[in-house]
Amino acid sequence: MIKCPFSFSRFSKFPLLFSLAFSQFGCTELRGTGDLGVIIEREPAAIQIINTSTNNSISKISGLGDLSHASIVYSRDARYAFIFGRDGGLTKIDLLQDKIAKRIIQAGNSIGGAISQDGKLIAVSNYTPGGVKIFSTETLELIADIPALYDSQQLSKVVGLVDAPDQKFIFSLFDAGEIWIADLKDPTQPKIEKFKNIGKQPYDALLSPDGRYYIAGLFGDRGLALLDLWSPEQGVKRILPDYGKNDEKMPVYKMPHLEGWAMAGNLMFVPAVGQHEVLVVDQNTWQLVKRIPVIGQPVFVMARPDGRQIWVNFAFPDNAQVQVIDAKELQIVKALTPGKAVLHMEFTPRGEHVWVSARDDNQVLIYDTSSFKEISRLPANKPSGIFFSSRAHKMGL
Amino acid sequence: MIKCPFSFSRFSKFPLLFSLAFSQFGCTELRGTGDLGVIIEREPAAIQIINTSTNNSISKISGLGDLSHASIVYSRDARYAFIFGRDGGLTKIDLLQDKIAKRIIQAGNSIGGAISQDGKLIAVSNYTPGGVKIFSTETLELIADIPALYDSQQLSKVVGLVDAPDQKFIFSLFDAGEIWIADLKDPTQPKIEKFKNIGKQPYDALLSPDGRYYIAGLFGDRGLALLDLWSPEQGVKRILPDYGKNDEKMPVYKMPHLEGWAMAGNLMFVPAVGQHEVLVVDQNTWQLVKRIPVIGQPVFVMARPDGRQIWVNFAFPDNAQVQVIDAKELQIVKALTPGKAVLHMEFTPRGEHVWVSARDDNQVLIYDTSSFKEISRLPANKPSGIFFSSRAHKMGL
Repeated sequence: MIKCPFSFSRFSKFPLLFSLAFSQFGCTELRGTGDLGVIIEREPAAIQIINTSTNNSISKISGLGDLSHASIVYSRDARYAFIFGRDGGLTKIDLLQDKIAKRIIQAGNSIGGAISQDGKLIAVSNYTPGGVKIFSTETLELIADIPALYDSQQLSKVVGLVDAPDQKFIFSLFDAGEIWIADLKDPTQPKIEKFKNIGKQPYDALLSPDGRYYIAGLFGDRGLALLDLWSPEQGVKRILPDYGKNDEKMPVYKMPHLEGWAMAGNLMFVPAVGQHEVLVVDQNTWQLVKRIPVIGQPVFVMARPDGRQIWVNFAFPDNAQVQVIDAKELQIVKALTPGKAVLHMEFTPRGEHVWVSARDDNQVLIYDTSSFKEISRLPANKPSGIFFSSRAHKMGL
Repeated sequence: MIKCPFSFSRFSKFPLLFSLAFSQFGCTELRGTGDLGVIIEREPAAIQIINTSTNNSISKISGLGDLSHASIVYSRDARYAFIFGRDGGLTKIDLLQDKIAKRIIQAGNSIGGAISQDGKLIAVSNYTPGGVKIFSTETLELIADIPALYDSQQLSKVVGLVDAPDQKFIFSLFDAGEIWIADLKDPTQPKIEKFKNIGKQPYDALLSPDGRYYIAGLFGDRGLALLDLWSPEQGVKRILPDYGKNDEKMPVYKMPHLEGWAMAGNLMFVPAVGQHEVLVVDQNTWQLVKRIPVIGQPVFVMARPDGRQIWVNFAFPDNAQVQVIDAKELQIVKALTPGKAVLHMEFTPRGEHVWVSARDDNQVLIYDTSSFKEISRLPANKPSGIFFSSRAHKMGL
């Protein structure tokens, strides 16, 4: 234990200075970091640090740039949140001191990021300039730059970036139709393995919770691109050949998020593209086993941590609603109406509660997942993503 | 943020008093709790608080009674560790202040405990008097007492206590041959569901990581007792009918720990009782699919968090060794010799390292699971269990 390392006598006549030093050396409320989280407020851009034990907001922090499509990862001690802004901003938030620890603008336009297995590296995937940059989690200094070069020295937008076991990052090149594995065991010398011709325009991807399967959605092709990281020598396979690419033209904003796909036991629950269905896929065979009708076009399809319930939110005009699928019966058991423009859902680590953001009601609602009763609600300005610190210990987020 | 709530001027002439207040109000090194853990030292009884980012010991705490068979659960903020001692002691440790927050002797002889899904209740399973007691995590006050009554008012020893989704605890009655589900939604009025005639002398149990299957080992019968919590109306079934109860008499200390069984994908890896084998079971059919020969009688069979590796330690006289099974090839890929009397292993949350206690070498060794290289080692007095704070977010531990 380190006691505040300054002399008391020296400061006794200077209360203000003393107070500053006090704050500097952590003389704040003691706070475990296991039950903390962050709510993204889009407009005006800010975050709230929240506590999932007391269901309270702890503090609000602004000065984070454009948060219209922001995502978050956590340091392995769950003390720091790293926020990836759409404007290329990368901000390190200290959850114990409720302040920005460090902030940089790392690119012109970024889409998301990940943290390495050992917690020492942050990777950010960028549209402009297309590629992946690797930063130190400690200092946010640039460690490595991986331009997404293809063909005659063109740069591709990079999407679907995830961390994977053995200190790897995996991502997809939208313009090139490629999946790359970057091995960062030597952080300054990333080793890249490339998989080409995986399908047209991968637009997002997910890693299965066990870190084994990387699955990319294809905007320009039917089906999904599957890479089994236990057998990379087998290359990328196409699964669910009827999936996606509707015959009608669809605006991109209706493409479902892939990180929200649910794995429960052997089953994967997948939002159908442009249709009012959740697809149930057998993870052993990658075959479709059931189509579950839902109220609208699904966006996030998320499993409660025990896999028993699958919660689904929807695209406009059905985005005031949430439906819950029972994973045993494979049918809807509950419908809720949390509020206008439900954008995101996050389960508490052991699944007793779920937090739901209703953007146009300026509310975050907290439900008991057992009784489906609303427990509490917090005001928030145009809330979108909700991210709890237990993500620190998970792969592929 | 709460600033230290005392007047500076008042204390300026009393450095000692000041220092005490300082400590009281948390003027310590700021510390995220996501990368903390506890090592149990058996002799002399104490714990070490450790950090898995720096691979260091932070502090040592004694005065915890008999720790010869102790286990630990964590509060949902990962700030507090609750230690269950074999002597009936229940101790709440503050990981931020490196001290005992509260300690009680709750029974004469206890075997383990669990924390409720909502984090508000601690359950302890006791041999003497046989039953389960429920305490407040906040105050350690007794909330409910569940005597394990059976037949003509006899009390059974209770084993295999786990927490489960929907605010439940599940446990087995050794003497009665029963499994009970206790629903603690109303903490002062537990609702008990009993399953009788599940087999003779259940001696330990596990919950699958998704919280669905409760499996009890039977000391007095062959096979294992399986309860599917998604279908409790189907009752308890016997699986793996050839499992356990060797023909020769075996001392109890060779019965493998069930909480250490590994679930990886669809496969469960199970230590054979009294034989030099790890059994591989298909979780869809509960059929044995392979027997993997190992160097000795397996004790803990533990999956790396991504399920790719299965680490196995052994009973005397092979307890200086550890073997690693590859979950894809279903064969041993590595053998290590960490030291004398390897008792326990704990993976870092995302699996890059594993900590191994070698009791009779007075060492805890840290290995990189990718290269199998030893990274560091810490001195410890007869170390046994190692428990990391990421357990706060898991079910069934």
